[in-house]
Amino acid sequence: MTGMASLAFSSLALRWEGVSLVLLDQMALPHREVWVDGATPAAMADHIRALRVRGAPLIGVAAGFSLASFALKGARPEDLEDGARLLRGCRPTAVNLMGAVDRVMGTWLRMGKEATALAAEAMLLAREEEDCCSAMAERGASLLGSGERVLTHCNTGSLATPGIGTALGVIRRGWELGKVEQVWVDETRPLLQGARLTAWELSRLGIPYRLITDGMAASLLVRGEVDRVLVGADRIALNGDFANKIGTLSVAISAFHAGVPFHPVAPDSTVDRGCPTGRNIEIEIREGDEVRGGPPGAQWRSWAPGEAPVWNPAFDVTPVGLLTSLLTDQGVFSREALMGGVLGQGQDPPRAPGGRK
Amino acid sequence: MTGMASLAFSSLALRWEGVSLVLLDQMALPHREVWVDGATPAAMADHIRALRVRGAPLIGVAAGFSLASFALKGARPEDLEDGARLLRGCRPTAVNLMGAVDRVMGTWLRMGKEATALAAEAMLLAREEEDCCSAMAERGASLLGSGERVLTHCNTGSLATPGIGTALGVIRRGWELGKVEQVWVDETRPLLQGARLTAWELSRLGIPYRLITDGMAASLLVRGEVDRVLVGADRIALNGDFANKIGTLSVAISAFHAGVPFHPVAPDSTVDRGCPTGRNIEIEIREGDEVRGGPPGAQWRSWAPGEAPVWNPAFDVTPVGLLTSLLTDQGVFSREALMGGVLGQGQDPPRAPGGRK
Repeated sequence: MTGMASLAFSSLALRWEGVSLVLLDQMALPHREVWVDGATPAAMADHIRALRVRGAPLIGVAAGFSLASFALKGARPEDLEDGARLLRGCRPTAVNLMGAVDRVMGTWLRMGKEATALAAEAMLLAREEEDCCSAMAERGASLLGSGERVLTHCNTGSLATPGIGTALGVIRRGWELGKVEQVWVDETRPLLQGARLTAWELSRLGIPYRLITDGMAASLLVRGEVDRVLVGADRIALNGDFANKIGTLSVAISAFHAGVPFHPVAPDSTVDRGCPTGRNIEIEIREGDEVRGGPPGAQWRSWAPGEAPVWNPAFDVTPVGLLTSLLTDQGVFSREALMGGVLGQGQDPPRAPGGRK
Repeated sequence: MTGMASLAFSSLALRWEGVSLVLLDQMALPHREVWVDGATPAAMADHIRALRVRGAPLIGVAAGFSLASFALKGARPEDLEDGARLLRGCRPTAVNLMGAVDRVMGTWLRMGKEATALAAEAMLLAREEEDCCSAMAERGASLLGSGERVLTHCNTGSLATPGIGTALGVIRRGWELGKVEQVWVDETRPLLQGARLTAWELSRLGIPYRLITDGMAASLLVRGEVDRVLVGADRIALNGDFANKIGTLSVAISAFHAGVPFHPVAPDSTVDRGCPTGRNIEIEIREGDEVRGGPPGAQWRSWAPGEAPVWNPAFDVTPVGLLTSLLTDQGVFSREALMGGVLGQGQDPPRAPGGRK
């Protein structure tokens, strides 16, 4: 599994074989399974912006592979650097994307601008993120009681990561162990990642779930029909505040109000150690048509007045005070530990050579 | 304006002239303005169930007019009684519908089964509800500060009542007086009454607004971008708990968390004095396709897996502890007064002869 012969990686959402890279088009799901080419940074940037590939851990890995394929096809160094810049700026909130691009390009630079070094680093990153998911799933499942009813928001499974997922990975492992009885799935407006993607993944896995609109979660929480909330994270500040898909804060406040445990689940690479608090996280504002109608993609229809003014932030920030604990591949961090600054203490976790600074 | 010659009533959503009754089809809005016939109880029951006519105060009035038209066209008494039963059971949560049907049928019985007596009572009910709206709007606007940014959920304007509305009536009057600067409109999944109807009404009135998805409200509230929340109510229990469109509870919890004043606005006819607390309110559960896709009506498309299991309650119950005050045509009732049982004290407010018991 090492060396030149093994420059290949495949997951539910992505297949990479050196110069070739295809992605499962997440805008076509759940009704159609379409694979699109992402072997150049320009194509990949389009896919990322259009959310054909999405999920903080997955877009970092996908961006790394697209740079690798581009380099292996003999791209000129200046074109590769332009591609890296383009990818880095595609989505401002997910720190993994910037981290992944910096990491593979840093290795490329250090290794004499060798395409194969870049490719090996991209694959290492993917394998690390895949292993991260498994580690988080095991650790997270061990926190669960028995027969829990878990609520989740957005999509954090194999369509959002190169492995079994973050929050949804914990749910999947918990279900395998009999610790999860049922999943409540927020549809996650405006882009409906819950209705389109999480429902599709859970259907495939045979895990019992029920789909709700985002406004229904509070009612379930207050009525005692949810034992735990597990969500992903797109960026975690040093103090434990975290950005995640818009609507997460609403669930967090309702869970806190109802006394239901609430946990973000994310790889340590999602912690931005240059970001002191949630206030420092830039929130991506997207175009109004996402709110004026739906679903995203070719089937889109407007249902609001055409000129309706819209506010469409892609993320919100949940303050650390609403968390029960944060779960990463490095450990479980309680609210109190997070507020005590645990994420900034000691040295960074060990990294493979060439890893992110 | 009295006597036989004046058996006519018209509002934004409904036009009644004795034997004729047409309704603005709210499922076709905002893109098409289509009027449908509702002059028989059977047709009206269809319209109510399909939400072509909606809003607790309006469906009561519309049901009364359809019974009036049916009676004036010479319906047999037993058919009229069947029609009343059909209408009464159309939607289980909104108490106004049952109250309105009982009231017009009670008058009809007392007045020797005279069609014109029923028609006069239906019109009296409509005028009372219209006046109620104006009274609530004046009283509510007097509570507002200056240049407030108000958030609302669902639709509570001239499409939901025979007058200028409940919560949206207060907003409209407040805007006329310079006390409302901007309205944040929750789209209100699954049936999108905010995106389709409130946005359309505010556009027509020239009141500045911005449309958001339901999951964005918490973020605005926490960031200090909302000065007040005004919503309607479908049924109010004696202790001040109230049922309203699904998603209201989520806004109430977030507003409470953020310290933003939160008020339901509804006519006194929405208070169910036979209902001690929110726990006694029956919640209508609707079909899953409303959640599996959208928008409601002919343009509907599925975006979830076809077999996705769904939970689709049409309403939730907000406990009185989350209210700042309740605003009705009879007064402003603080949380403390509501918790002290003010809604059950003293005699019922004065009613016109033949009014609801």
